[in-house]
Amino acid sequence: MTEKTFAFVVYPGLTPMDLVGPLQVINTFAETAPDVRVAVVGETLDVVGTDTPLRLAPSHTFADLPAPSWLLVPGGGAPTLQAMADPTLMAYLRKAAATAEFVCSVCTGSLLLGEAGLLDGRKATTHWMFRDLLRAFGAEPVAQRWVEDGPVITGAGVAAGIDLALYLVGKLGGPAAQRLVQFGLEYDPQPPLGPLDWSQAPAAELRPFTERTVRDGLAGVPQLRDKLLAHL
Amino acid sequence: MTEKTFAFVVYPGLTPMDLVGPLQVINTFAETAPDVRVAVVGETLDVVGTDTPLRLAPSHTFADLPAPSWLLVPGGGAPTLQAMADPTLMAYLRKAAATAEFVCSVCTGSLLLGEAGLLDGRKATTHWMFRDLLRAFGAEPVAQRWVEDGPVITGAGVAAGIDLALYLVGKLGGPAAQRLVQFGLEYDPQPPLGPLDWSQAPAAELRPFTERTVRDGLAGVPQLRDKLLAHL
Repeated sequence: MTEKTFAFVVYPGLTPMDLVGPLQVINTFAETAPDVRVAVVGETLDVVGTDTPLRLAPSHTFADLPAPSWLLVPGGGAPTLQAMADPTLMAYLRKAAATAEFVCSVCTGSLLLGEAGLLDGRKATTHWMFRDLLRAFGAEPVAQRWVEDGPVITGAGVAAGIDLALYLVGKLGGPAAQRLVQFGLEYDPQPPLGPLDWSQAPAAELRPFTERTVRDGLAGVPQLRDKLLAHL
Repeated sequence: MTEKTFAFVVYPGLTPMDLVGPLQVINTFAETAPDVRVAVVGETLDVVGTDTPLRLAPSHTFADLPAPSWLLVPGGGAPTLQAMADPTLMAYLRKAAATAEFVCSVCTGSLLLGEAGLLDGRKATTHWMFRDLLRAFGAEPVAQRWVEDGPVITGAGVAAGIDLALYLVGKLGGPAAQRLVQFGLEYDPQPPLGPLDWSQAPAAELRPFTERTVRDGLAGVPQLRDKLLAHL
């Protein structure tokens, strides 16, 4: 039995639900899969801020875990765009992806995979408000809850990370494991207004927000900023 | 415009998804509701562990925020049972509840509300595997996604916190705000196996786990342990 490690990447300013949804799913699976280890990796073990008042701290550094079996990168707003220009994070993603079985992202985490060169020629998804930006990395945007293309599995916005992670549990442990995790987390969604009605998506209303997020996050990297804005 | 604070309680060993699902929902709402402030409160500002490798740190101490307008308490496994015997946490919940408009819980967080005396004579819910234990506090267990009884709103297990928080957004900001948050978090759930089929719930299989959680968590508090076990 070979031990495998699922690493969840932490960086400053991320959206904690992008990280914690999948982390809780995989961690629950790991409780009954003794060959699966879960780790939260960051550049250092220091506490980092998020896009909420909650602060987070990883369990391992990038140096501790250079070659995890599986990797998941969460997204966020402007700080995630900013992280595209973080050479330490980019180097870690490239290096870890070279040996990982699967590399996954949630929400705008796919922009980080894109900048790391991992989406070129692949189908991929991200948060619906940022989907067109994937073209800047040679990816083909797909409007699905999650998209699997070879070893790269990208998820849609924020809450999609839970569905993506359950898909991974099925892939790794089969439907019985998937069902047990779903009961364990009581994942039986009942959104008060029901599922989203995409014909009502406030796309025009939120487009300025998307543009501002790119401009704010990449203010110090005008070349990358303009490359993305060209696809908005 | 009176400023109101929504406080999310942190204690050692909690289930991070119980906390982060609702936190992300309410924080997204607060971005367009300038009178709503969000805080994460703990006994100290120190980092605490969770039931995953992730560690968390609050933004405020209990002393900083003795009287939030709204309060939410997440759950967890044995550490949550153990927290029932934490006099500082219990004193905070009782004091904050005395002036709060709403007191909410997710998952076994309701056991903490129960021990604080806040569920006596009320309808309430919790994680399905722990639901019968609510009777130990004079509560009437209800098998619903969330249960509102006066100022106390309890949610079912883990993932139910997202639905409960969206319900609160509707209560505080109306359906337009609720819809905007749902689009922002792309909360359009697609569990790979579909909704839970409760006729297949592994109740008998998991009952020993529930009992062990109570025994482990309350090993040092035999009177409380036995009071709960009597309802299993």
